[in-house]
Amino acid sequence: MNLILIDAAEVRADGTVLLSGPRGAHLIQVLHVIDGQTVRIGIVDGAMGTGTVLHADERDVQLHCEFDATIPPRPRVDLLLALPRPKVMRRLWAQLSALGVGQVILTNAEKVERDYFDSHVLEPKGYLPLLLEGLQQARDTRVPAVSIHKRFKVLIEDELDALSSDAKRLVAHPQSDTRIERALGRTDASARVLLAVGPEGGWNDFELALLEAHGFQRVGMGPRILTTTTACVALLTLVHDALAKSDGE
Amino acid sequence: MNLILIDAAEVRADGTVLLSGPRGAHLIQVLHVIDGQTVRIGIVDGAMGTGTVLHADERDVQLHCEFDATIPPRPRVDLLLALPRPKVMRRLWAQLSALGVGQVILTNAEKVERDYFDSHVLEPKGYLPLLLEGLQQARDTRVPAVSIHKRFKVLIEDELDALSSDAKRLVAHPQSDTRIERALGRTDASARVLLAVGPEGGWNDFELALLEAHGFQRVGMGPRILTTTTACVALLTLVHDALAKSDGE
Repeated sequence: MNLILIDAAEVRADGTVLLSGPRGAHLIQVLHVIDGQTVRIGIVDGAMGTGTVLHADERDVQLHCEFDATIPPRPRVDLLLALPRPKVMRRLWAQLSALGVGQVILTNAEKVERDYFDSHVLEPKGYLPLLLEGLQQARDTRVPAVSIHKRFKVLIEDELDALSSDAKRLVAHPQSDTRIERALGRTDASARVLLAVGPEGGWNDFELALLEAHGFQRVGMGPRILTTTTACVALLTLVHDALAKSDGE
Repeated sequence: MNLILIDAAEVRADGTVLLSGPRGAHLIQVLHVIDGQTVRIGIVDGAMGTGTVLHADERDVQLHCEFDATIPPRPRVDLLLALPRPKVMRRLWAQLSALGVGQVILTNAEKVERDYFDSHVLEPKGYLPLLLEGLQQARDTRVPAVSIHKRFKVLIEDELDALSSDAKRLVAHPQSDTRIERALGRTDASARVLLAVGPEGGWNDFELALLEAHGFQRVGMGPRILTTTTACVALLTLVHDALAKSDGE
């Protein structure tokens, strides 16, 4: 943990918080905090700040909290992902929130098995702890919004504009020669990107055509075919890098 | 598998190969091959080509092989990695070979536990199947060279030039503002890059200074702190993207 995330409701009126459980154990056993020491803290979906250790014993740590005036911006990249199998999805949650994703839109596709949708990793109590784990790793407080869609056509035709109205839409495609940076071009500092990543085995022709009919531009990253996990990390990295570069120019 | 890798010794004088075991099972049960069908094949560390199914039954597949005249080039990026814990390293092998790495140089560092070096995943019989898995995913034949170094200082001062003589050397550092693309600048099509990635918790001051004294330039990818796995995938992606862009211009 490079940041301790705290629920707003945990902070008392006097600005203190009592951490037990995994966060307290981390502070005591890994960081070996002592009275007066400061640690980085953040409110879930709120400001970051500094916690000063008032008291630490074997089990609990009491912190006095001071928070920044501003809340970190929501990451500017959203992910539209054909639902991978549960084992893969379980490992992906923390990586997505660590890399920085504003929202995760999970969808069915022809090559998605229907029973993937029954997995425990699609329930908030299954994925929220994993999203928080990634945020605490990456030092961010903004929890990605998650929505799950079992009907691809309904999602793309009827629901997507409400979820993501003004984003530049990209769909990763192994045969595309268009680099992400080129597809994005120069963007302003508030521009958002919606990146679509297909299932292992790819979108079928209908799915790809429907995405393109709804504004998704094909982008590629060379001839190598990657698994869902590796592809998501690689593609999100390239989108963030292109946005950061455009901001810096 | 998007490519079936075959050992050169498996190909008979008449150009046929008999596949049983996991590769035969994959062809039969996943690809449902029939006589006359063609599949992509490659020789380990050799040429890619086409296999024509001569005969397939429940267990074995016999292919007639035709190979390209040229061998795919070795990926132009090498990785110098502080050895992560065995569970992480096990998951990383296939991702590294899928992304494309010419060699993997594993090293000790202050924040690497000594017993990580005793792991089964550092024996060739532990990691070679994982490297081949990544190559078969990504459609490549070139197996990364692997070397393991328990003494960081000896590696950097005495051994590294023989392993990697003419590569541009980069070290990932969370506090660096220098983007990889900028650090690389314009490169010619044969340029190689050696990317150093530290342990969870980072290189210590001595290690970082020694790397810099031996030509490693600090590069960063923004303020987010990533785990070893995510960082390796993200950084290798950015190096490959910068090299591809430089080639395309």
